[in-house]
Amino acid sequence: MKGPQQSREDIPAALQDDRMIILQGSLCCFARNGYFNTTFKDIAKETGLSQQSIGSIFASKDEILAEYLQMCDDEIVEQIKEETESDADVLERIRSICVTTLIYLGTHSELTAIWVEFYKHHVARVVLKKFFGLLRSRISEQIVEGMENGVIRKANATHIVEAIVELFEGTLILSRLEGTNNEVERRFLASWEVMVEGLVQK
Amino acid sequence: MKGPQQSREDIPAALQDDRMIILQGSLCCFARNGYFNTTFKDIAKETGLSQQSIGSIFASKDEILAEYLQMCDDEIVEQIKEETESDADVLERIRSICVTTLIYLGTHSELTAIWVEFYKHHVARVVLKKFFGLLRSRISEQIVEGMENGVIRKANATHIVEAIVELFEGTLILSRLEGTNNEVERRFLASWEVMVEGLVQK
Repeated sequence: MKGPQQSREDIPAALQDDRMIILQGSLCCFARNGYFNTTFKDIAKETGLSQQSIGSIFASKDEILAEYLQMCDDEIVEQIKEETESDADVLERIRSICVTTLIYLGTHSELTAIWVEFYKHHVARVVLKKFFGLLRSRISEQIVEGMENGVIRKANATHIVEAIVELFEGTLILSRLEGTNNEVERRFLASWEVMVEGLVQK
Repeated sequence: MKGPQQSREDIPAALQDDRMIILQGSLCCFARNGYFNTTFKDIAKETGLSQQSIGSIFASKDEILAEYLQMCDDEIVEQIKEETESDADVLERIRSICVTTLIYLGTHSELTAIWVEFYKHHVARVVLKKFFGLLRSRISEQIVEGMENGVIRKANATHIVEAIVELFEGTLILSRLEGTNNEVERRFLASWEVMVEGLVQK
């Protein structure tokens, strides 16, 4: 996804504007009709641009989605930057990374509305897998540091990262299923405490 | 969902057969076309029964799904019965309940194929919420017992149950996303160990 992001910087301002108009217009369509039911014709109607103009900037709907998700990811990275660089306990940092990401996803309703659609589409699945890949690598850095400085118990780091990502995704999906998106933060924090402390009576 | 199950027992054998034919035929259609794209006409074609006959037994596609999921749940209960009644450690029992359920879902590909569709449909969501409700209550019994006999650390039991269910669902969904359904058992076991032991170095 580096491609679209890099090219953005070389583009004249007028085209940059069209790019943003298309991105925002597409998202309105996605949130209203779903990703798969949205056509270039819908996006043209929403943005007031011709299908040809849209096609000259984005070759496909998948490209629009990929660029949008890259933008979201850039914003999330920006938001968690302070936390990952802080002197806080690594466990606290991981919690912040997860919560910040969950809140971001929760406040971008156009994203959570199409989230479950992604699982059924091969291109969109690639994008979503990339998202989880980024989340994994951020958590992974913290886990390794935590093991080195003795905060996190020595164990298979990959298994720990996976368990945290699964907890993250399970919380997100079940909140969506149960229509309690607004409780996703509280819910994750409660489950996070369970995972941090473990189940066994010691 | 007790309704359909109770009525099944009072139905003459010939109608019972039609019931099973419709259930099995519908599932073939669901797995092939998806739940939402399947019509009564498709089911009639698949089963060789008339749409009227099907309609006299099941008022709607949702009823077919509800009865099928009840059947699955009965089978899962049967499979985990031995484990929940065994003398094993409660932690081992919970692990078995989750793994057995995951394997069951994994070997019923018609079920996992429509799983992600459920999140978008209000009736199917009710059915899926019911499924998680049953899983929760089974795990909950074990957690309460485990706290009483000192195996599980004293903490908010609801939070612990939620965390386990989230881990379960996260494992299932991510395995599906990543096309590694055959690794769901191994994956859950690794994450389960993380949750049991916790993250903190003690």
